[in-house]
Amino acid sequence: MKEGIVLFAHGSRDPEWSRPFESLAAELSKKHVVRLAYLELMQPPLADAIASLADAGVDSIRVVPVFLAQGGHVKQDLPRLVAAARSAHPNINITLEQAIGERPQVLAAIARAITAD
Amino acid sequence: MKEGIVLFAHGSRDPEWSRPFESLAAELSKKHVVRLAYLELMQPPLADAIASLADAGVDSIRVVPVFLAQGGHVKQDLPRLVAAARSAHPNINITLEQAIGERPQVLAAIARAITAD
Repeated sequence: MKEGIVLFAHGSRDPEWSRPFESLAAELSKKHVVRLAYLELMQPPLADAIASLADAGVDSIRVVPVFLAQGGHVKQDLPRLVAAARSAHPNINITLEQAIGERPQVLAAIARAITAD
Repeated sequence: MKEGIVLFAHGSRDPEWSRPFESLAAELSKKHVVRLAYLELMQPPLADAIASLADAGVDSIRVVPVFLAQGGHVKQDLPRLVAAARSAHPNINITLEQAIGERPQVLAAIARAITAD
């Protein structure tokens, strides 16, 4: 079984905006098969990242919303995109995970980074 | 010397969106004087959070952008808001910090949360 990970972020008109996501993808790529994807304003969209992982021969894909919080983009737009990806790739098990900002260890790290407590 | 911290986030039409920021504020408030503020769609705006900290008698304020990445909101909108706050409160030392997603220890925690490596 071969697993792929999609880091899904919002996107921005500012090319520098993608820097943290690219750093994260580079770090995770040391041990995992990783693609970045964006909701809007940056390339590639989710469908292209999923197709690229399918071409790489993965059996399963974890879609990780790299968002601090869950609003309409994560709760409505992204599930629609994931549903379309499942229809396009019925033999790949595609799971949609919780936004990273909803994970307690991430919030704890943010708190530590702010206060150096 | 009394310091205040403003956690500055984007805001959303979805009331649930603010949950991680409220958790973060609650955690930091155990040891610090903290206010939340939003760029748009949620209350209060930065000016109100700064005024609230001024009323609480702080001498200095750290404005922390709780954004994963730095685009137009963090690089253009927020500096303008901070400049206006400095004009309104000339006796308070107001510093604008780096977005939390640009801090290596936060990215490392996100990477660990995703992979459980």
